[in-house]
Amino acid sequence: MTMAAPDIKAAIGQYLAAVASGEASKVAALYADDATLEDPVGSEPHRGRAAIEAFYGGLQGEISTELLTARVAGLEAAFLFRVVTKAGDATYTIEPIDVMTFNDAGQITSMRAFWAPEDMTAA
Amino acid sequence: MTMAAPDIKAAIGQYLAAVASGEASKVAALYADDATLEDPVGSEPHRGRAAIEAFYGGLQGEISTELLTARVAGLEAAFLFRVVTKAGDATYTIEPIDVMTFNDAGQITSMRAFWAPEDMTAA
Repeated sequence: MTMAAPDIKAAIGQYLAAVASGEASKVAALYADDATLEDPVGSEPHRGRAAIEAFYGGLQGEISTELLTARVAGLEAAFLFRVVTKAGDATYTIEPIDVMTFNDAGQITSMRAFWAPEDMTAA
Repeated sequence: MTMAAPDIKAAIGQYLAAVASGEASKVAALYADDATLEDPVGSEPHRGRAAIEAFYGGLQGEISTELLTARVAGLEAAFLFRVVTKAGDATYTIEPIDVMTFNDAGQITSMRAFWAPEDMTAA
């Protein structure tokens, strides 16, 4: 018996919905136990689900997310998305490109976020 | 004396212009000697500039390229772009997301192209 291939586009949708929920534990639950997270690319990676949950604990304000473009190749994907965060009177918008790998169960095994400070706009 | 950081967005522009030229040697010249190329992600990587030039030797028809979005983090980048190829009466369009790493001289040290056959349209 072979395992059905996970639906990677659905997994990306679940990830963006979890980020928009603002609940770090929900986001971390989508990662494999021993996953790594490098955000932004070039920074020291966070390793393991506890460290990953702590990273998403930084989510604050009212968050919305929107998938703009996704490209899937097997169990890897690259996708462009928009994150809008409202905090008080300020609204911050950023559109990173994330690269993720997944395991056969559809859990995220690594995430690398491509963006630079100049890609963020405030209004 | 420290080396000035290479202009990665300019390097991406040079790459897309070289692809549009259709000349494999021009594209391969932008890669480091020992670079790797994985296109699409999940396929066997091509290693070294000679193998990379052979890969781009498959370019045919009248090609145009357009950068849609680029995200740069240090010496790594992810970018969404459009390639339109006219061959005879057919026009093929694909918009991959490429992930590249560069060396201090601005040469491409690795390229991974995220796309799937269903991302290509023909008209």
